[in-house]
Amino acid sequence: MLTGRSPSPPSSDQVRPDVAVVGAGPIGLAIAWRCAARGLRVVVHDPAPGSGASAVAAGMLSPVAEAYFGERQLTGLLLASAARWPAFAAELAEAAGADIGYRTEGTLMVGLTGDDLAEARRLWAYQQGLGLPVTPLRPSELRDREPALAPRVRGGAFAPTDHQVDPRLLVPALRTAAQRAGAVLVPQPVRMLSDVDAVVTVVAAGCGAAALTGLPVRPVKGQILRLRAPDGVAPGFRHVIRGYADGEHVYLVPRADGEVVLGATVEERSDTTVTAGAVQRLLRAGGDLLPELAEYDLVEAVAGLRPGTPDNAPILGPLPDRPDVLAATGHHRHGIVLTPITADLIADLVLGGVPDPLLAPFRADRFGGAAAVAASGGPEPTLEGDLWS
Amino acid sequence: MLTGRSPSPPSSDQVRPDVAVVGAGPIGLAIAWRCAARGLRVVVHDPAPGSGASAVAAGMLSPVAEAYFGERQLTGLLLASAARWPAFAAELAEAAGADIGYRTEGTLMVGLTGDDLAEARRLWAYQQGLGLPVTPLRPSELRDREPALAPRVRGGAFAPTDHQVDPRLLVPALRTAAQRAGAVLVPQPVRMLSDVDAVVTVVAAGCGAAALTGLPVRPVKGQILRLRAPDGVAPGFRHVIRGYADGEHVYLVPRADGEVVLGATVEERSDTTVTAGAVQRLLRAGGDLLPELAEYDLVEAVAGLRPGTPDNAPILGPLPDRPDVLAATGHHRHGIVLTPITADLIADLVLGGVPDPLLAPFRADRFGGAAAVAASGGPEPTLEGDLWS
Repeated sequence: MLTGRSPSPPSSDQVRPDVAVVGAGPIGLAIAWRCAARGLRVVVHDPAPGSGASAVAAGMLSPVAEAYFGERQLTGLLLASAARWPAFAAELAEAAGADIGYRTEGTLMVGLTGDDLAEARRLWAYQQGLGLPVTPLRPSELRDREPALAPRVRGGAFAPTDHQVDPRLLVPALRTAAQRAGAVLVPQPVRMLSDVDAVVTVVAAGCGAAALTGLPVRPVKGQILRLRAPDGVAPGFRHVIRGYADGEHVYLVPRADGEVVLGATVEERSDTTVTAGAVQRLLRAGGDLLPELAEYDLVEAVAGLRPGTPDNAPILGPLPDRPDVLAATGHHRHGIVLTPITADLIADLVLGGVPDPLLAPFRADRFGGAAAVAASGGPEPTLEGDLWS
Repeated sequence: MLTGRSPSPPSSDQVRPDVAVVGAGPIGLAIAWRCAARGLRVVVHDPAPGSGASAVAAGMLSPVAEAYFGERQLTGLLLASAARWPAFAAELAEAAGADIGYRTEGTLMVGLTGDDLAEARRLWAYQQGLGLPVTPLRPSELRDREPALAPRVRGGAFAPTDHQVDPRLLVPALRTAAQRAGAVLVPQPVRMLSDVDAVVTVVAAGCGAAALTGLPVRPVKGQILRLRAPDGVAPGFRHVIRGYADGEHVYLVPRADGEVVLGATVEERSDTTVTAGAVQRLLRAGGDLLPELAEYDLVEAVAGLRPGTPDNAPILGPLPDRPDVLAATGHHRHGIVLTPITADLIADLVLGGVPDPLLAPFRADRFGGAAAVAASGGPEPTLEGDLWS
């Protein structure tokens, strides 16, 4: 077990790191920041920091709107992490000296047609049943909140605690904070776990975790668009808007600088091509909810790969046969909202050796034995001790 | 008047050029090629050859499908130029040693709904009335020709002589041919006519002609998409398809390498932003006509500016007060099809001094007197003589 303060001077170049983090997306960088801030020697390996799922992500912090049937344990983790976001955002902005686009106007959930609204209402009732803050709105209340919504939008509800952040500001801020805390970034790929040498290795490599660890992480394609309000003004709406539009489920995330993120497909495939049909469906659904989008510039159409798992919940904790290797991956569509709690609990685990009870549903061995360590190359010969004793 | 063979050695650097062409798009390059091939010393000025309307153009050679009500003189020129295309394409491919994507499968014109078909049929009847080759097809004949068309396409017609070329292959081929014939490219902008010094100046600067000459050339925005068939195969259709789809007029141009050009908006504005609404309408209309497009990659969405004139026909000939300055601009949506005849007739004019009768409807002075030469800076002091005497 690592102690709270490393006995070795953090500045020594030749000393074996306490923690090697594989992957400099938001998860990896936040873990590195938290560990380095607590005095550990941290090295982060990534040839292209922030180039994975986060580069494409919209940045919704939506534990309420994303509380789906059959995902109660995941919902609990989402809520717990979202609750940490206000303090996390403030601390990060301070540590990095940078704005990360954290906005708290809340989320409007809407249904375009009667059918869409009926489908949405079932979910809202489920979310209310969990005690979550979801307030149904009459059409007039909906339009008072967001006059830009199309007149034909049939109804909606308000989730005031579902906020947003800009992932393209978040990642560089986390990188700065991690480096200021002493973490060292190594811009080289890690092809197998034996490429790194540290007391503890954290695999925060998104979809890349599968090849490194044998964990059942699969790429889930998402196509997403970035629009921009004309003439450099802010978008004509300020809430995150999530909606069903003729059966298509889309979201719209407005940024202060005029950007609007419109997403996203969820496709069980691993290519990153942008297809005509997906772009058309997103634009159609977005424009049906917010007609002014038709006049917006279309500035980017991209596809990314989310790291999905068999139960779509993350994998957080040691590999079954490698207690010195901690997984922090499989965050699927929830990587941004889950960044604070992942960073805190993985840092606690590195330092304290005992997993927080919150992590219990997300153990790496929950999918059965054989998968893990298949690609890991076996235990490190330099393993210093059992982190979990 | 310039004689058929320049008496000066073409290789001399210090000699005043016979012809300065402003603009290295297809029009300017083809004129330069034709002039240089006939022994004139030619300099072409353009800081970014091929970066104007041609970089965005689809490359349809469609005098029949584009024979619209009220444009008979333009239709005559389009037909005359299209008739020159087979020989022009062969000669250019030979001169440049390059493929230019010239394809002769012909064009299918279709209507999606009953209303679309009714609108299309009025135009086909007009075109047939002009004696143009337009063959109405029964739905079964349409599908025999192009099985990929949507089952709901109500009807169509075949224009066998409307061909296509790839503008992104055409421009480099013309550049090679012009240079091999001795033309010199100068990669610098021409801000006013006095920036160039030649016996004859040809302004083939597209929208830029307005500022150089005072001619009433206005930018007409067009948004266009490029798709690509998945897996690197050729598109599942081989004709150029032009269609009305729920009132939207679109075309689809298949290339051998898998590319499909889907266009285009015609907007009276001068920005080059790509808007969400236009992309959605193009994709919707294209996909309604050819459902397989939904699975195609969307690889490019761009906007360009066509050089339009008050009557949407080109301006071909001397400026009213500057007989040594020839305009070859205002080709609007027809620059590619009009390239051969523009090049031939302007080269004839440079060499012979007498405008071909075909040029009569396209004189620069047809819009009234005041506009021309407003921005030209007046007659060149070095003018050698009246080209039109």
